[in-house]
Amino acid sequence: MALSLICPTKDPVPWVAAIKAISPDIDLRIWPDDGDKADVSFTLVWAQPQGIFAQYPNLKVIASMGAGVDNLLQDSSIPDQATVVRMVDPRLVSQMGDYVLAAVLNHVRQFPDYVQQQQAHQWQPMQPRNIDEVTVGVMGVGQIGSAVAARLRRLGFKVVGWSRRAKVLAEIHVFAGQDQLSSFLAASEILICLLPLTAETENILNTGTLGQLPQGAYVVNVARGKHLVEEDLLSLINNNHLAGACLDVCRQEPLPQDHPFWSQPKITITPHIASLTDPVSVAPQIVDNYRRMITGQLLLNWVDRQQGY
Amino acid sequence: MALSLICPTKDPVPWVAAIKAISPDIDLRIWPDDGDKADVSFTLVWAQPQGIFAQYPNLKVIASMGAGVDNLLQDSSIPDQATVVRMVDPRLVSQMGDYVLAAVLNHVRQFPDYVQQQQAHQWQPMQPRNIDEVTVGVMGVGQIGSAVAARLRRLGFKVVGWSRRAKVLAEIHVFAGQDQLSSFLAASEILICLLPLTAETENILNTGTLGQLPQGAYVVNVARGKHLVEEDLLSLINNNHLAGACLDVCRQEPLPQDHPFWSQPKITITPHIASLTDPVSVAPQIVDNYRRMITGQLLLNWVDRQQGY
Ligand SMILES: NC(=O)c1ccc[n+]([C@@H]2O[C@H](COP(=O)([O-])OP(=O)(O)OC[C@H]3O[C@@H](n4cnc5c(N)ncnc54)[C@H](OP(=O)(O)O)[C@@H]3O)[C@@H](O)[C@H]2O)c1
Ligand SMILES: NC(=O)c1ccc[n+]([C@@H]2O[C@H](COP(=O)([O-])OP(=O)(O)OC[C@H]3O[C@@H](n4cnc5c(N)ncnc54)[C@H](OP(=O)(O)O)[C@@H]3O)[C@@H](O)[C@H]2O)c1
Repeated sequence: MALSLICPTKDPVPWVAAIKAISPDIDLRIWPDDGDKADVSFTLVWAQPQGIFAQYPNLKVIASMGAGVDNLLQDSSIPDQATVVRMVDPRLVSQMGDYVLAAVLNHVRQFPDYVQQQQAHQWQPMQPRNIDEVTVGVMGVGQIGSAVAARLRRLGFKVVGWSRRAKVLAEIHVFAGQDQLSSFLAASEILICLLPLTAETENILNTGTLGQLPQGAYVVNVARGKHLVEEDLLSLINNNHLAGACLDVCRQEPLPQDHPFWSQPKITITPHIASLTDPVSVAPQIVDNYRRMITGQLLLNWVDRQQGY
Repeated sequence: MALSLICPTKDPVPWVAAIKAISPDIDLRIWPDDGDKADVSFTLVWAQPQGIFAQYPNLKVIASMGAGVDNLLQDSSIPDQATVVRMVDPRLVSQMGDYVLAAVLNHVRQFPDYVQQQQAHQWQPMQPRNIDEVTVGVMGVGQIGSAVAARLRRLGFKVVGWSRRAKVLAEIHVFAGQDQLSSFLAASEILICLLPLTAETENILNTGTLGQLPQGAYVVNVARGKHLVEEDLLSLINNNHLAGACLDVCRQEPLPQDHPFWSQPKITITPHIASLTDPVSVAPQIVDNYRRMITGQLLLNWVDRQQGY
C-alpha cells in the first residue's frame, strides 16, 4: 500500500514534507521513481502525463492537488473503479476571496483608469461608486464561489449567484440552471466566474451571455481559460458594451507573447495566481482520505465524474 | 440669519439642493453674491479666499465641506468667537475604507507588479501572502482611521493603530504619542496615513519615520500631501527599503507634470478621490448644526482650533 505523487510541473518536496509531518508512516513515493506500481493504491496528481494511470493495476484513489479536476478527468486511463477526489480548503478559499476583492475594488474604484492616467501624467478626478450600489454576480456558488459571494456581501456589495441546482444562501439570491441564466446575467454589473470547467460550462462566457450583462459591466475570470471565448470578450470591450476584465486564467497558459490581451489596457492579466494550494494546509485531508481508503469509508471531496466536477 | 456657501472650486448647486430638500426655510446664499454679509451667521466653505471671513461681522459658525480643516484653519480672518465644524459622515468613512482596501489588497496581491509584467508581456507567477500574515498600521485612528482599521481587522488583517491620546479598539493594539511611534512603525508592514494635517503632523512621513518601517513595507497616504516628504519616499523606494506607495494626495495638487512620482512604477497615484463628501449624505448635519447655532446648543463635530483638528 503506497501513495505516489505524480506532478511533473510541481515540486513534490513540500508535499512530501507536509504529509510526512503529520503521518510519517505512509509509504510515500515520487513518480517516475515510484518503484513497483502494483504497490500504489493512492496517487496525488497535477498535470500527470496522459494515460499514466494504466500503469497502476491497484489504483483506488486519484487525488487532484488543486480544486479543479477538468484537466485530470480528460485522462481516459482513469480506472472505472477508482475514486477521484479534489482539494477543498479554507486557505484556497480565502486566497481566492482576497484576489476577487482586489479585482472588484480595483474596478469599482477605477484603479485601471488611474494607472492609464498616471502613464499620461494626467490628474483627472472621477466620481467613484459606493459599493452598496453595485451588484456582483458570482457564477458558480460551490465551495469557493459561495464563500467569495458571502464575503462580498458582508463587505457591502449586493450579490447574486448562479448554480446548477437551486440553493439558498443568506442575503444572496441564487439563480439556478439554464432557465434563469438570463436573469442572473441581467443583474450582474460585475461577473465573477467560479465555475468548474465541464462540457456544459466550456465557452460559457461568449457574446450571447456577456452581451446580456448590463452596459458597462466588468468580467473577472478566476476559473478556467476555456470558460471564455476570448475574441468575444475583446469585441465586447472594443464596442464598449463591457468596461473591461480581470483574467487570472487564459485558454493557453502562459498567455502567448503576441496575444491581444497583453496590450488591451482595459484587461488586467495575472498568471494563474488567484489561489494556490498550500501543501501544509491540505495535507490533513490527503492523509484523512488515505486512511478512509484503507478502512473503506466514504472519501472526502469526491468528484462526480459524470458531471465533471 | 443666513447661511452662505463659499466654495469657489466646488459647484454649490448640489449642496443647495441637498439642504433645501430637508430644510426649505433656511435663507441660503452663494458667495460672492450673498447679499448683506451682516445677515450671514453660518458659512459652509471649501477653499475659501484667504481673509474672506473679515467681511462677515456676525459670523458664528464656519463649517468645512470636508473632513479635513488644515487649509481652512490657515485663514487668520476666522473670528475668535466663531466655531469651526467639519464633516463626520458614514459615506465618507466607507468610501475611504473601499479605497484603502483596494490599495492594501493591490499591494498584498502584487497587482502593481503584474501590471508591469503585463506591459512586458511577461507571465511570471509569484507566491502571494495570506492577509492574516500581514500587519497593517493605521496612523490616526479618529473617525475615519478607526473605522478603516476595524474593517481591515474584520477582513482578516492584523492591525495596529497610532493616535495622540491612548485609546482602546477591539482586536487592534493602539500605540499612542511620540513615545510609542517607533514601536508602531516597527510593526507596520503596510502604513496607512489617516492623520489630520497639523503643525505636529506636517512632514511626519520622512526618512526618520519611514526608515523605521520593516524592510519591504508599503505606504498608503490618503490624508494630506504635506504629511509626506516626497524626496524621502523616493529615496527609500530607490534603495529598496520600501516596496512602494499608493498616494491619493500630494504636496502640490494636481501633481506637476514633471514630478518624478508619475513615472515611478512602484508608486500609484490617484487624484485625491479616496473619499468625496456627498452633499446629500451630509446635509442633515449641516442643518442640525444650523439649528443648534440658533438655539445655542453645543455644535456637532467641532474642531479644536488649538490642536488643529
Ligand atoms: N484561478 C485559480 O487560481 C483557481 C484556484 C482554485 C479553483 N479554481 C477554479 O474554481 C473552480 C470552482 O471551484 P469550487 O471548489 O468552488 O467548485 P465546486 O465546489 O464544485 O462548485 C462549482 C459550482 O459551479 C456550479 N456549476 C457547475 N456546473 C454548472 C452548470 N452547468 N450550470 C450552473 N452552475 C454550475 C455548481 O452548481 P451546484 O452547486 O448546483 O453543483 C457549484 O455551485 C474550480 O473548478 C477551478 O476551476 C481556480
Ligand atoms: N484623501 C481623501 O479623500 C480624504 C477624505 C477625507 C479625509 N481625509 C483626511 O483624513 C484625515 C482624518 O480624518 P478624520 O475624520 O478621521 O480625523 P479625526 O477624527 O480628527 O482623527 C484624527 C486622528 O489622528 C490622530 N492624531 C492627530 N494628531 C496626532 C498627533 N500629533 N499624533 C498622533 N496622532 C494624532 C488623532 O488622535 P486622537 O484620537 O488622540 O485625537 C485621531 O486618532 C482628515 O484630516 C483629512 O486630512 C482625506
